[in-house]
Amino acid sequence: MASQFKKLAPLLNRVLIQKYEPVTKTASGILLQSSEDKQAVGKVVEAGPGQIDSKGNVIATLVKPGDVVLLPDYGGQKIKLADQEYFIFRDSDIIGILHQ
Amino acid sequence: MASQFKKLAPLLNRVLIQKYEPVTKTASGILLQSSEDKQAVGKVVEAGPGQIDSKGNVIATLVKPGDVVLLPDYGGQKIKLADQEYFIFRDSDIIGILHQ
Amino acid sequence: MASQFKKLAPLLNRVLIQKYEPVTKTASGILLQSSEDKQAVGKVVEAGPGQIDSKGNVIATLVKPGDVVLLPDYGGQKIKLADQEYFIFRDSDIIGILHQ
Amino acid sequence: MASQFKKLAPLLNRVLIQKYEPVTKTASGILLQSSEDKQAVGKVVEAGPGQIDSKGNVIATLVKPGDVVLLPDYGGQKIKLADQEYFIFRDSDIIGILHQ
Amino acid sequence: MASQFKKLAPLLNRVLIQKYEPVTKTASGILLQSSEDKQAVGKVVEAGPGQIDSKGNVIATLVKPGDVVLLPDYGGQKIKLADQEYFIFRDSDIIGILHQ
Amino acid sequence: MASQFKKLAPLLNRVLIQKYEPVTKTASGILLQSSEDKQAVGKVVEAGPGQIDSKGNVIATLVKPGDVVLLPDYGGQKIKLADQEYFIFRDSDIIGILHQ
Amino acid sequence: MASQFKKLAPLLNRVLIQKYEPVTKTASGILLQSSEDKQAVGKVVEAGPGQIDSKGNVIATLVKPGDVVLLPDYGGQKIKLADQEYFIFRDSDIIGILHQ
Repeated sequence: MASQFKKLAPLLNRVLIQKYEPVTKTASGILLQSSEDKQAVGKVVEAGPGQIDSKGNVIATLVKPGDVVLLPDYGGQKIKLADQEYFIFRDSDIIGILHQ
Repeated sequence: MASQFKKLAPLLNRVLIQKYEPVTKTASGILLQSSEDKQAVGKVVEAGPGQIDSKGNVIATLVKPGDVVLLPDYGGQKIKLADQEYFIFRDSDIIGILHQ
Repeated sequence: MASQFKKLAPLLNRVLIQKYEPVTKTASGILLQSSEDKQAVGKVVEAGPGQIDSKGNVIATLVKPGDVVLLPDYGGQKIKLADQEYFIFRDSDIIGILHQ
Repeated sequence: MASQFKKLAPLLNRVLIQKYEPVTKTASGILLQSSEDKQAVGKVVEAGPGQIDSKGNVIATLVKPGDVVLLPDYGGQKIKLADQEYFIFRDSDIIGILHQ
Repeated sequence: MASQFKKLAPLLNRVLIQKYEPVTKTASGILLQSSEDKQAVGKVVEAGPGQIDSKGNVIATLVKPGDVVLLPDYGGQKIKLADQEYFIFRDSDIIGILHQ
Repeated sequence: MASQFKKLAPLLNRVLIQKYEPVTKTASGILLQSSEDKQAVGKVVEAGPGQIDSKGNVIATLVKPGDVVLLPDYGGQKIKLADQEYFIFRDSDIIGILHQ
Repeated sequence: MASQFKKLAPLLNRVLIQKYEPVTKTASGILLQSSEDKQAVGKVVEAGPGQIDSKGNVIATLVKPGDVVLLPDYGGQKIKLADQEYFIFRDSDIIGILHQ
């Protein structure tokens, strides 16, 4: 249903993330699978404005579109927009921002 | 019972939502059902004034009537008003606002 | 025991509600029962002054006597006053105020 | 043990209540027992000064000695003072004050 | 191990209590045991300075040495000091102060 | 691994404690074991600076090095520093300070 | 996947830790394994800016890169960066800072 919509503006501190496809095949075609490859890395596509504190003020979301982030092994909510698969995470569940 | 009432003014941060019917049939009549189609999309019909914080101030509800929203896979409370089916969600449970 | 008392002044944000009898019989005498009829609608008879916040201030109860309200499917506490059956709900558990 | 003591000054928002004996026998001696008679009604004998909020201030107890109150079906702590049976409730657990 | 120490200065809102021996024998030597005798009555021997609130201020302990208190049926921590048995309770768990 | 380190500066309100060996043998060599001997007594070796309250201020740890303390029957985390066994407790879990 | 990234900037009060390899073999090649060796010691590689309090202020992380820390027996999240194994801990879960 959500496939016909192109853009999602997440509420609160929710973050829309496009996960990187895990490279589990080498150039020669051998499939590599190790426990370390389970880790999810993704790019932030959209980020909500932030959580609301006990005084009604907004605590700005910790990541911004374009950030490459390390995600927890479990959690996140799979959604589909314009036939593309995305994940929704709370910014507080994102482990950190990756740099090469 | 509630069918004889035409309008509901939700309390606090509750949101009255009319879900979009999932299109599970193609023009040629073939039924399509995929796990991605489970996602619920709906239109906000009524929104409560907002949650009350620890100081008694109102934190305005995050969505307004007319917004098309992405809903979580589970949750929401089914109600019936004037023979129409609606759902009640807390604004904090709504994932985000959809744009085409 | 409580039947000999005619009036209850609820404490905090409790609301005394008289539920509407569900109309489950048509004029011609046929019993109608549908899942939608489970929903509870009631009239507010008495409302407590309100919840007390963390600073000792009263947060006024969200409904007032005379309001017709939509109640959750479950919950509420059955009580009897002057041989009439009532229900006690917290105002925060009431879904919204109904209008015809 | 507590039977030898005549008075209890409850701490915080605790309330000492003497329950009314349920009238389960009619004048003609027939025992009446209905689900409505389960409800507990009692008179407040002693009330603590009140709960302490997060700033150390006292939030005065909601009922005072002499109030006739409607109690929840479950809960309360049975105690004995000077061979009389009483119950201890938190004021926030008392449903409301009854008036005839 | 703690038997060789004579004094305990309880931390926070902990209270050191010496329970009264339940009188379960009459003068004529008959053992009396009733459900009411389960109630624990004790004398406050030492009281901590008090709980610390969310601002770091101390909320003074509700009882003081010498107070005779009514204790809950369950809970409390048995300790031994100088071969005497005591109990540790949080002041918020003490029901009230008894007077004869 | 931690055995090669001589000193631990505990974080927050953690307290490093060296437990007293329970004397379970008399001078004549008879082993004494009673339920009262289970109680743990220890000396504070190091104490963290304190818990951080909701405003970011430090609430100073309730005990200091050298204090002899009564510990709860259960809990605490066994660690080893320079081949000596210690226990880590939160100051809020320590029952009180013992005096002879 | 995360192996191709060289640096992680942890969010909030998360700390990136490189655990020390437990020395479980002596110079003569005998494997030593004792319960005390279970304890995890590690070096802080990166530390997030800190937790956000209820007012939106940052409470600075308790450890800094280079600190050698004592870790709890359980917990922590294994991650891999540039083919090196690391662990993520919240600063509040770290027991203390070790000194030789």
